[in-house]
Amino acid sequence: MGTTSRSTAQNQAADLDAADSLRPHLDRFVTGGDVQAYLDGNSLGRPLRVTAERMRAFVDEAWGTRLIRGWDEGWFDLPLRLGDRIGAVTLGAAAGQTVVADSTTVLLYKLIRAALALRPGRTEIVVDRGNFPTDRYLAEGIAAETGATLRWIDPDHDAGVTVDLLAPVLGDQTALVLLSHVAYRSGHLLDAAAITDAAHAHGALVLLDVCHSAGALPIHLDKWGVDLAVGCTYKYLNGGPGSPAFAYVAHRHLADITQPIWGWMGAAASFEMGQGYVAAQGVRRLLSGTPPVVAMQPMIDMLDLIDEAGVDAIREKSTALTGFAIALVDERLTDHGVTVATPRDPDRRGGHVTIDHPESQHITARLWEQGIIPDFRRPSGIRLGLSPLSTSFTDVVTGVEAIVAELEKPA
Amino acid sequence: MGTTSRSTAQNQAADLDAADSLRPHLDRFVTGGDVQAYLDGNSLGRPLRVTAERMRAFVDEAWGTRLIRGWDEGWFDLPLRLGDRIGAVTLGAAAGQTVVADSTTVLLYKLIRAALALRPGRTEIVVDRGNFPTDRYLAEGIAAETGATLRWIDPDHDAGVTVDLLAPVLGDQTALVLLSHVAYRSGHLLDAAAITDAAHAHGALVLLDVCHSAGALPIHLDKWGVDLAVGCTYKYLNGGPGSPAFAYVAHRHLADITQPIWGWMGAAASFEMGQGYVAAQGVRRLLSGTPPVVAMQPMIDMLDLIDEAGVDAIREKSTALTGFAIALVDERLTDHGVTVATPRDPDRRGGHVTIDHPESQHITARLWEQGIIPDFRRPSGIRLGLSPLSTSFTDVVTGVEAIVAELEKPA
Repeated sequence: MGTTSRSTAQNQAADLDAADSLRPHLDRFVTGGDVQAYLDGNSLGRPLRVTAERMRAFVDEAWGTRLIRGWDEGWFDLPLRLGDRIGAVTLGAAAGQTVVADSTTVLLYKLIRAALALRPGRTEIVVDRGNFPTDRYLAEGIAAETGATLRWIDPDHDAGVTVDLLAPVLGDQTALVLLSHVAYRSGHLLDAAAITDAAHAHGALVLLDVCHSAGALPIHLDKWGVDLAVGCTYKYLNGGPGSPAFAYVAHRHLADITQPIWGWMGAAASFEMGQGYVAAQGVRRLLSGTPPVVAMQPMIDMLDLIDEAGVDAIREKSTALTGFAIALVDERLTDHGVTVATPRDPDRRGGHVTIDHPESQHITARLWEQGIIPDFRRPSGIRLGLSPLSTSFTDVVTGVEAIVAELEKPA
Repeated sequence: MGTTSRSTAQNQAADLDAADSLRPHLDRFVTGGDVQAYLDGNSLGRPLRVTAERMRAFVDEAWGTRLIRGWDEGWFDLPLRLGDRIGAVTLGAAAGQTVVADSTTVLLYKLIRAALALRPGRTEIVVDRGNFPTDRYLAEGIAAETGATLRWIDPDHDAGVTVDLLAPVLGDQTALVLLSHVAYRSGHLLDAAAITDAAHAHGALVLLDVCHSAGALPIHLDKWGVDLAVGCTYKYLNGGPGSPAFAYVAHRHLADITQPIWGWMGAAASFEMGQGYVAAQGVRRLLSGTPPVVAMQPMIDMLDLIDEAGVDAIREKSTALTGFAIALVDERLTDHGVTVATPRDPDRRGGHVTIDHPESQHITARLWEQGIIPDFRRPSGIRLGLSPLSTSFTDVVTGVEAIVAELEKPA
């Protein structure tokens, strides 16, 4: 056991919380029930206190009294306006390149298919075994239907996915490099700019999955030259379980991009309802069905809060939280056989910390019963998701000390 | 002009409303704003008064305090449980065949692709020019990507799509017949059982779009032998703008069905997150991304209300409403050059009535300003959507008389 006692850690956390300029925002989130410490805001962000009232007003006023007129009064363009807002607040994306729709999975399907169509004659997709299951499964399914070949890479345990790791699989047959900006399990953060340059040097496109980075750290899709991106709004954007996803297409590809799910909301003249599909101009053509207007509501206030707090300040707190968590795990849990799977270099990790122990599944279940809520990640990981705006340093201590207590119980 | 005056019509409507056994349910829906008569519940159903409180409780309690634990406590299976409920209440579908997900467009894409895979070697899809744009556009897109041939039919003006109309295009190359149960513009109601038998006689599958029938009239997918169906929940199921859709796959196809958008929620072991996609057993394999749990909430109470009222009673009121509307249009609007596009045989029409007049777009805009809200449908239609549980006979008179007033204004 290290030299830090539980009470020392609690005092350190109290000092850090007192000095945290973002601390006042903690009070904006719903609390209650049995929750002692929520350490999974990177899987499902907490609702804001204003969210329930937004939903009530939406149901009873916007939906209930404007009724179908709502489509003319803002709903039709909401996927684009909200996309632009996400782009400006979290993606470093100028207007007209981002749209909200569907699920992450469906948008990834559209954009992987789109990428293959943008690179006719090229047959290979680079994908890594550390990526989130949906990304990998989609690539497999699209390979099965199109005849594309998957070039699998295994992320380096220490460095994740790097330019060096990609080099051997990039070539003149590479159509697309599909990667997650922050790895869902290990927390590795890509050097997206360098990887994009490496892919472009071979004429390949990059599709970046920003599910675990959007809202938690600065993203500069335009500056980095990323071609395509998809992300989730129920993690750091607090859109609620199953809220719709967003897709980004760099301006230079908008004129040529296609996608296979031709629906009325991606057509050039949706309400003409004419014969023959003609794709809309711009990023609207990524839409297919009727936009999920109800489900788009909760994220609106969180985007305002992120904008108010500032992504740089959020990132600063995030690295402080993850650094504090790693140091505390080192001190309090190393002797119990716990190891840290997440990079110690703050510039190479995202907003969560995964630790490994053979009893992780059992421990997570016991913690949940106590209202201390991290996530279990196979085969042996406890993932501490430290959503910066809704997590305190004290929450970190509560979580780590609860793990200590479980490991110190008699077998 | 006919013999019915405005006041006579109002008196008739008052009598019909007084005798309407479903009338008490009108009070369960949100009212307010400037709304005088809502005649578009088949495009966007009204919210129930209980919906805002359901959303508040969901946000502040289920989401806010159970947090990620919600997935283990019901959300993961919600697409299947809610699907079964829709199946039982509105589709005549036994459990295990219906799932809630995505949008109508995305589910139609999956099921059209699925149908082609279930009929390898067959290359033709039958589709009609009266179908909703999304259905037609999807068929075009899938034909473009798979090489399938579309066999277009034009619905008969009086009879809609019939077995006789289909006969010339059905053959041993027909993989799929894609039809809407109720036509979105004309309101024609198919004889789905007869059409399914005709398609099956040629070895083809039937995919029925029930967007404009689910919740408004009895559907018997199992009894009719329909193979596949997709429908919408924001029309007669009052799920709110852009609420998710549902898909039905007949039991006999579940073991063999495939779909191209391979995501983690359609995998056999979603939270194992293993290498290699293995499709889930049963209708779950139609899922792709994370289920839209927030967006699934509003429809729950409406399904209960439909179950309580009974689909047969709803259909009885529906045909009375549409019959009353047609008679009133005949009496009050024929002399103004208005014609009825919807079948006069109640057994051959759905829950809405479309009337045609050259000034329909202008008239609809003027009505909207008065809080009288039908829908405009190109090129010259006013569609009166008479959602049975939330529309009164008096609403019909209000709508028709407002059209009379517009047409009697000096040019």
